[in-house]
Amino acid sequence: MADNISKGEFSIINSSTIRKGVPEKATGRAQYTGDIVLPNMLFGAILRSPHAHARLLNIDISKAQQLKGVKVILTGKDVSQIKFGHSPARFDETALALDKVIFVGDEVAAVAAVDEQTAKEALDLIKVEYEPLPDLLDPLTAMADDAPLIHPEYPRNICQEVHNSVGNVEEGFAQSYLVRTDRFSNKKTDGAMLEPQACLANFDLNGNLTLWTSTQVSHYVQREVAMVLELPIEKVRVIAPYVGGGFGVKASSGSHEVLASMLAMAVKQPVRLVLERAEVFIRSRARHQYFHEMKIGVSKDGKIMAHEHLAVLDGGSHASLGIATVYYNGSMLHAPYAISNLKYDGYRIYTNKPTSGALRGHGAVSNRALFETQLSMVAEELGIDPVEIRLKNMLQKGDRTKTGYYMSSFNAKESLMAARDDSGWQQKKGKLPRGKGIGVGSSYFVSGAQGAIYRTDIPHSTVMIKVAEDGRGVTVYTGANEIGQGSDTVMAILTAEILGLKVENINVISGDTALCPIDLGAYSSRQTLMTGNATKQAAEALRDQIIKKVSDAFKIPAADLKFKDGRLLGTEKNPDMVKDVRGRYKSEHRGFSKLVDNGPLSFEEVTRWVYAGQGSILGTGTYTPPELQYSKEWKGSIVGASPAYSTQSCIAEVSVDMETGQLTVDKLTLAHDCGLALNRQSVEGQLDGSMCHGLGEALYEEVVFDQKGKVVNNTMGDYKIPTSLDVPELSALVIESNEPHGPFGAKEAGEGCIIPVIPAIINAIYDACGVLILDIPITSEKIFNGLQEMKKTGDRTYIYKPSVYADKIINRAAELRG
Amino acid sequence: MADNISKGEFSIINSSTIRKGVPEKATGRAQYTGDIVLPNMLFGAILRSPHAHARLLNIDISKAQQLKGVKVILTGKDVSQIKFGHSPARFDETALALDKVIFVGDEVAAVAAVDEQTAKEALDLIKVEYEPLPDLLDPLTAMADDAPLIHPEYPRNICQEVHNSVGNVEEGFAQSYLVRTDRFSNKKTDGAMLEPQACLANFDLNGNLTLWTSTQVSHYVQREVAMVLELPIEKVRVIAPYVGGGFGVKASSGSHEVLASMLAMAVKQPVRLVLERAEVFIRSRARHQYFHEMKIGVSKDGKIMAHEHLAVLDGGSHASLGIATVYYNGSMLHAPYAISNLKYDGYRIYTNKPTSGALRGHGAVSNRALFETQLSMVAEELGIDPVEIRLKNMLQKGDRTKTGYYMSSFNAKESLMAARDDSGWQQKKGKLPRGKGIGVGSSYFVSGAQGAIYRTDIPHSTVMIKVAEDGRGVTVYTGANEIGQGSDTVMAILTAEILGLKVENINVISGDTALCPIDLGAYSSRQTLMTGNATKQAAEALRDQIIKKVSDAFKIPAADLKFKDGRLLGTEKNPDMVKDVRGRYKSEHRGFSKLVDNGPLSFEEVTRWVYAGQGSILGTGTYTPPELQYSKEWKGSIVGASPAYSTQSCIAEVSVDMETGQLTVDKLTLAHDCGLALNRQSVEGQLDGSMCHGLGEALYEEVVFDQKGKVVNNTMGDYKIPTSLDVPELSALVIESNEPHGPFGAKEAGEGCIIPVIPAIINAIYDACGVLILDIPITSEKIFNGLQEMKKTGDRTYIYKPSVYADKIINRAAELRG
Repeated sequence: MADNISKGEFSIINSSTIRKGVPEKATGRAQYTGDIVLPNMLFGAILRSPHAHARLLNIDISKAQQLKGVKVILTGKDVSQIKFGHSPARFDETALALDKVIFVGDEVAAVAAVDEQTAKEALDLIKVEYEPLPDLLDPLTAMADDAPLIHPEYPRNICQEVHNSVGNVEEGFAQSYLVRTDRFSNKKTDGAMLEPQACLANFDLNGNLTLWTSTQVSHYVQREVAMVLELPIEKVRVIAPYVGGGFGVKASSGSHEVLASMLAMAVKQPVRLVLERAEVFIRSRARHQYFHEMKIGVSKDGKIMAHEHLAVLDGGSHASLGIATVYYNGSMLHAPYAISNLKYDGYRIYTNKPTSGALRGHGAVSNRALFETQLSMVAEELGIDPVEIRLKNMLQKGDRTKTGYYMSSFNAKESLMAARDDSGWQQKKGKLPRGKGIGVGSSYFVSGAQGAIYRTDIPHSTVMIKVAEDGRGVTVYTGANEIGQGSDTVMAILTAEILGLKVENINVISGDTALCPIDLGAYSSRQTLMTGNATKQAAEALRDQIIKKVSDAFKIPAADLKFKDGRLLGTEKNPDMVKDVRGRYKSEHRGFSKLVDNGPLSFEEVTRWVYAGQGSILGTGTYTPPELQYSKEWKGSIVGASPAYSTQSCIAEVSVDMETGQLTVDKLTLAHDCGLALNRQSVEGQLDGSMCHGLGEALYEEVVFDQKGKVVNNTMGDYKIPTSLDVPELSALVIESNEPHGPFGAKEAGEGCIIPVIPAIINAIYDACGVLILDIPITSEKIFNGLQEMKKTGDRTYIYKPSVYADKIINRAAELRG
Repeated sequence: MADNISKGEFSIINSSTIRKGVPEKATGRAQYTGDIVLPNMLFGAILRSPHAHARLLNIDISKAQQLKGVKVILTGKDVSQIKFGHSPARFDETALALDKVIFVGDEVAAVAAVDEQTAKEALDLIKVEYEPLPDLLDPLTAMADDAPLIHPEYPRNICQEVHNSVGNVEEGFAQSYLVRTDRFSNKKTDGAMLEPQACLANFDLNGNLTLWTSTQVSHYVQREVAMVLELPIEKVRVIAPYVGGGFGVKASSGSHEVLASMLAMAVKQPVRLVLERAEVFIRSRARHQYFHEMKIGVSKDGKIMAHEHLAVLDGGSHASLGIATVYYNGSMLHAPYAISNLKYDGYRIYTNKPTSGALRGHGAVSNRALFETQLSMVAEELGIDPVEIRLKNMLQKGDRTKTGYYMSSFNAKESLMAARDDSGWQQKKGKLPRGKGIGVGSSYFVSGAQGAIYRTDIPHSTVMIKVAEDGRGVTVYTGANEIGQGSDTVMAILTAEILGLKVENINVISGDTALCPIDLGAYSSRQTLMTGNATKQAAEALRDQIIKKVSDAFKIPAADLKFKDGRLLGTEKNPDMVKDVRGRYKSEHRGFSKLVDNGPLSFEEVTRWVYAGQGSILGTGTYTPPELQYSKEWKGSIVGASPAYSTQSCIAEVSVDMETGQLTVDKLTLAHDCGLALNRQSVEGQLDGSMCHGLGEALYEEVVFDQKGKVVNNTMGDYKIPTSLDVPELSALVIESNEPHGPFGAKEAGEGCIIPVIPAIINAIYDACGVLILDIPITSEKIFNGLQEMKKTGDRTYIYKPSVYADKIINRAAELRG
């Protein structure tokens, strides 16, 4: 272990704890938003545009209104047109379209009725007159000089462009021994979380709104709904019940949440709105389609000399989190390698398609798939082992990227070597028969972001901890969002460790804006570090408060007192105190739990004693990221600045049928530096999940549009994700370090892991059969075609490039860049 | 005004504010416990004993179990037999009977089924074998030396006896010019609140129980359920939704709450249990039946020289709050008059009837009905006006009762004079024709009690206040219970006043043990004073915290800063600050409310500025009653010790048909010293409500038992309470004082007011027709009988005494007293 972690001192941290909520989920008893029933509840439904781009001429709701059971129908002219969105200073969405629709699925009207069936029937009775406008279904069409504008303020439909460099790439390339340029494309993917977006809005007659919603970001939803409905923040209570996955899709508040609230406000009854799976694909946001061109220059011995990157992102109809995406797409290549000369030009383009946004590994998956592939290719050209070229370039703890990001802990080499050794790389690489291959990829990722999305001056996490009157339980109140990733359990572990309790003594209330102090929520892999730090501080404040009270009252030096195993060690040295407190709580507190009657005072006894007179014992903690340093040269490098960086490497092993191209991924090995693993089985779960997710994105996932911009594979049957039968042997290696900015040395584990999986598979396929796939998802058909081409040409390798159409898009971006 | 109240300084306090929740209630949208629906919810029902006293031989649930839809049946042997209760150190209840039943309605088994109908059907299929035991349906039978014991530990079934005196009554009587002895009895009454007891229990699979319940005391319910189910406190979350009245009945936690929780625990589904109206009469607790003998001695000029009181209370099957009742029954006569020699002997007797407990005016209604009647009678004998004799004896501010209770504010004389003048007493008393009468009564009451019910060392109220991020709202978190009395609104008023906001800016979350800090709840008229003080302290802490931050940052003396009308006055003197803050929140906080743009900074602007960096702005306040002084001589005088005492007088005007005895109450005038009225219309509402309630108890209310101990008038049709048609002209006079221990001088208004109504009516009837009714409820039949007796004897007066049976009970108590 490179870092100094004294593991012996922990009671709970760093072991494996079953996540809170698992029994509910495993038995089907967990109540998700769509399971909640309120008296007089209505059911909402949304009428969506069948056109990708059209003027809205008229909406006739008269027939729908006459349908028995329909309670209210809202159209754009009935509702607030205050714009909202989720990128700083880019609000470009409204709840319902007013003058035109800009994607297939755009919200045209909303209905609330006594049951779902009636609500859907009402949709069919609404007559809408459209005047079709030219569809801009791809970035090429949209970027044309004379293209109609989806949002009039953005010429050539460029939602956001980024032009950045540090060092001098021209010089870097000039000094390079080898320069290589490649192009790459992916497809838009979906979040495919099991629970669709769902919400339930209810106003009381004092105008207080309670909104249950399946979200990653209760706090942002609260703020957005308040803003659009012009309500004071405190009148909007957002509660996230059990959430069935989000993966970034639920990290932006949505029109469904605003619409359900508007319907409930209009009709003064609760309104539940659960998206159908087809609507999930429309609302998904998730991964953009990217078009990359990258140029890499390396020295003869494999040192990366320069890197240049041009990218186009098909943004779809709105900004959502995509402005951050186009920045991340640049800055998420600044590590894990030391690169002195970097250049990036990125364009995010508005098109008449559903909006793309954030997905696990936000802004770091597609770009790194190409980067890592290129790196392996130049290694081959230089005759260097792909693992070796990575080790040669990797940053270490204490290093800073050229753009200023500081690696306060960074076991990149250790992770890569662990994956290498565990997979038997050295026995396999170059020694496998044709048709068998092994490949590698590496990466890094943030543990939370520097800025809050809409204001820069607030704490990112505040946590409050309260001790129960009987001392038998402690409740942690956090606005952080438990979305299945185990965040509640992490906060319980931290609290239990500090207070010398068991995890089952810790109750966690999370994601409820009325109960919980501010927390920005579950995105950018921020909660373990940020909420974790706030929780640690709160628990320590609570502990110190109790110890001080005992110390003052009984003249025991605070340093002699310590909570462990449910006791306050040190109290036994003061028998008078023990007798006093123990006696009191035996006689006075009838019906409380049975207490220990020998040895040091128990946590229960001590806290009951402190509770007396004072009442609720509260501790609070707050976390605001430190002012992070980053290069002023690289504009927007705040997107990517984080208090801590994880790092990870993946090794993939595959088989290719050299006749048919049939691909089998045989094994994935993933090593991830998560700092100190607070809950080992959760970290392992994240690694396993990331390998599966990366496998899906590499091989299967693609949102397919028809020629009118409609999603055609909008069911979980047609949109392919790996099932348990598709999952190969997985080896998850938890690599630890001691992150000074993390609670007890912890940092992120949920997102970075997905990143190296795709390039490892691409590289392994190339190693197996010589076909380099630069257009994902990889299919056996593509491999087959490559093998056929190789047969024709007699070459040992073939590069399966993105389409001609992708080339045109990149060419156009190059033209615009000048 | 005797006290120094500067009313000009208030913005909201002392005016009239519409209660929070009124629109919901008025429109039927308020969600009470019985309106809540959870998925998979089951319906509970309780099998109750048909016998008043019987051995439980066998319970056969086999047939009931076979009924389709029945999910679980619990009997005494299936469940915790941990005893609970609501009097200090007297736990004598279990959730289900084990060996014997002790009243008609005693809980024998509990069922949860898929619907209410099935649950009730299942009850009919349970076969129980009983062996009847002798019924002890009245205190006389129960007090017999050889009576079987309902609870074996209590000989002669004496649940609690109290023997107290101060001064020397023998001497007092010896020095008296006139001594008078009377006996009096009332009937057991019911709470008759519109919403029955109801609860809904749901366990998650981590063993966390959420219990929605219609209660006055969330905190006590939490503790009791945790105790019986052997759960840590923090695993029990009690939430009181809208509550449709309680009047003391819901001030004790009940077996239905324990049973619903047990059923939910057993079946792992939510269980709702709503009592039927007939069960409400069984569970009611409410007012005891009392049997009093009082002896009063007065000097020739009307000074009260001595008072002796012997009382028997029919307690029913369990202690409940009745131990406090038998103490209150003594100490609630120590004022509003100065009495130097006092003696009290009280017996609360266990009988095989439903338990009695607390009801509005706890322990001070029946006793004072006799006391005030006697006082008017001796006044007549002495030839002194009944108002004058009261004024002569009344305590004033700064006085202490002989038992040590301190009148820190006490406008007793002012209240009485106000009622006198408003009613035109002086023009009427002694000048009305036969058949018309006027009568008076006075009283005092506590504003909260000294001790918490089960432990003495905890704060009684802790309140937390949080400012919303956008500064447009403030949330008050209090464990206090809003039961329709307007307590939430009082806390909002206090907060709004201190922070210079409007009541609509203040959100109140109350009665939820997971969200709110400790508060003992709604009983003993404690919340305005105790929760109010905690709220005031919390709001002031919040205010001072904000002002300090501004003062420190901008070097403005804190004394120059003041919140008023939504602004921080004084900031306008620092234009740089205004420009800085105002500029920042215009540019940064898109979507927040529109802000003012001139003059001093608004509350929103200032709190947004404070929120920055710090996050949630929290203020807390805690109230624990001061160590109150009371006489050690009078044992148990802690029951009655309060930080402040209200005082009130009522004048009743009646007509009696001298032929038929038909009684009409023509008008009631009630003057009440509530300290400073925080919400005038709520105080007036309490006065009106108390007059109606007192009228009902004087004339109509009686729980009637058959000879087997079964309640026979157990519907709202048969149990008579006044309807709007029965209510006479009411005059409510809010008399103010400045109570130094109350928030802004406030004290109680909800309970004391009922007390003088009954004696005022009794005295008015006597004044009208010469019949003195010492056995309530008063009926026209009793008056008619009295008039008939007077015709026979030719007397001008007749005393309608309690029954011979009541005499025997008092005689037996006198015998026991020795």
